[in-house]
Amino acid sequence: MSNLPKFVEFREEGPREGFQIERGEFSLKARAELIDALSATGLKRIQVGSFVSPKAVPQMADTPELFQAIKRQPGVRYTALWLNEKGFHLARETEHVDLEPNLLFYTSEKFSQSNNNCSCAEMRARQSRWLDLYLEAGLKPDSAYVMTAFGCNYQGEIPLERVMDEFRAIIDLCAEKGCDLPSLILADTMGWANPYEMKRRIGALRELAPNARIGLHLHDTRGLGIANVMAAFEMGVDLFDASVAGLGGCPFASHGDTTASGNISTEDSVFLAHELGIETGIDLERLIDAARLAQDIIGRPLTGRVMHSGSLAKYRN
Amino acid sequence: MSNLPKFVEFREEGPREGFQIERGEFSLKARAELIDALSATGLKRIQVGSFVSPKAVPQMADTPELFQAIKRQPGVRYTALWLNEKGFHLARETEHVDLEPNLLFYTSEKFSQSNNNCSCAEMRARQSRWLDLYLEAGLKPDSAYVMTAFGCNYQGEIPLERVMDEFRAIIDLCAEKGCDLPSLILADTMGWANPYEMKRRIGALRELAPNARIGLHLHDTRGLGIANVMAAFEMGVDLFDASVAGLGGCPFASHGDTTASGNISTEDSVFLAHELGIETGIDLERLIDAARLAQDIIGRPLTGRVMHSGSLAKYRN
Repeated sequence: MSNLPKFVEFREEGPREGFQIERGEFSLKARAELIDALSATGLKRIQVGSFVSPKAVPQMADTPELFQAIKRQPGVRYTALWLNEKGFHLARETEHVDLEPNLLFYTSEKFSQSNNNCSCAEMRARQSRWLDLYLEAGLKPDSAYVMTAFGCNYQGEIPLERVMDEFRAIIDLCAEKGCDLPSLILADTMGWANPYEMKRRIGALRELAPNARIGLHLHDTRGLGIANVMAAFEMGVDLFDASVAGLGGCPFASHGDTTASGNISTEDSVFLAHELGIETGIDLERLIDAARLAQDIIGRPLTGRVMHSGSLAKYRN
Repeated sequence: MSNLPKFVEFREEGPREGFQIERGEFSLKARAELIDALSATGLKRIQVGSFVSPKAVPQMADTPELFQAIKRQPGVRYTALWLNEKGFHLARETEHVDLEPNLLFYTSEKFSQSNNNCSCAEMRARQSRWLDLYLEAGLKPDSAYVMTAFGCNYQGEIPLERVMDEFRAIIDLCAEKGCDLPSLILADTMGWANPYEMKRRIGALRELAPNARIGLHLHDTRGLGIANVMAAFEMGVDLFDASVAGLGGCPFASHGDTTASGNISTEDSVFLAHELGIETGIDLERLIDAARLAQDIIGRPLTGRVMHSGSLAKYRN
């Protein structure tokens, strides 16, 4: 296991991934408290909410107010998601948003149609315009995501070559615009990955872009999340999106519900890293407290595991 | 990943591990139905219950009746657990029990005192008498378990050398009695294992007993269960105890509850195996149905994941 990274960065997505999918209503105060608790853990990037259609995702409509309600900690970046140019402009106009300009690429025609109402090729063209916008605003792109990079519930398995085509497009686009490559993110949007495909696809991407930082956005839909994190550690990956308490899906909603795809749990992933001697800069005990707070807010047992059992720290002392 | 086994055997422990720890009362009929559902999956060994003190574990008091209630399928072995000689004799006297004589060794003095009211050394001496009993009855020992083989909540980390000492005692004992080595099982009784220690301890055990079959009994207490299964696959391990739906603990009972240690989920582990091209002889869809039945019986969401999302089969077709 000599390839294990010495330090791994976790980007917290729970506040956005979690509350956008939950059915109940949760007070602004409670959500701000959760973000404040996360701010005290050592996490350096916390995705607070999203600037998307309030009709489509009413849970995110008060994102601007949420940004004003949180207690910003020095050294922590408070970010937001947008899915179109209008969302980007809204984010820019909102006080206290730390802009992290991302690019989004699709590998599944059906998923792109469903999410963006356009083809994967048209989405690529849109990303070129997004990149122009970012550069005009003096911003560097932070990460480029390739969605459903392992498989898609609408379209089945996504061949590795199809995924690499999108990454090639990203590389070409950045070369054309003369900007540095952003982090390249393999997103397992619907929980299709397994440790073998994880290693194979990371290996192919590293061959394609030897100097790029590779990251992962993983969902634990079918229980292989932490095994996939381990496989990625073994490939030297040091950047992960994750959600406190495994927020980001409602796994008990219904059998076969395609929304039943919670993200990998931040605290379980951090626990694994620490057990392997990998540093994260995160205080695991505080993160577990934040996970328990998330559970109190949501009001049902969440799927993270170490939040229920506790870490091993107290048994070692 | 060239060391992956071609075929992995899963022994189902849910009916015993699960119902011995649940607080509610569950009808004999419901438990027999669950075992009958498991019998239809391709599982070849199902642990039905245990012959232990009805005062200590009242949930298992009707194990003899349960053995009569189930519909035995040809080719499936219906086994039971015992923790002392009296229990073994009860199992022998009960109709339809497929005797699988196991040996139990302890690495943690405090855990042995708590479970057996004796030291690890005295437990070793008792195992010598158990083995005599088995051999006198014309039975070969099936598996020898070394408990808390990674760490213990009462005593902290268990050094690898301490674990190997117990396995050496097992090897010496079998040599002395002139019987074949049983399967050697590393039991992570309290969920301390991580993939690195998993590989290290399996490697050391294989060096100690190159011809023995190595097996694992894993708990998913802190969320690393499936990553540990993967690490063991990579070391060529082909024998696992597991529990349908992750039965075997009540993870939502209380924070830091030491009983909060569900077993690894059989169906999630089988899903991983199949995704990697490893055969199990198990019909995953039927096993998922059995997991859902277990959840209906218990009456709360269980921790297995693929039972909630469904497998990938329908998306591939």
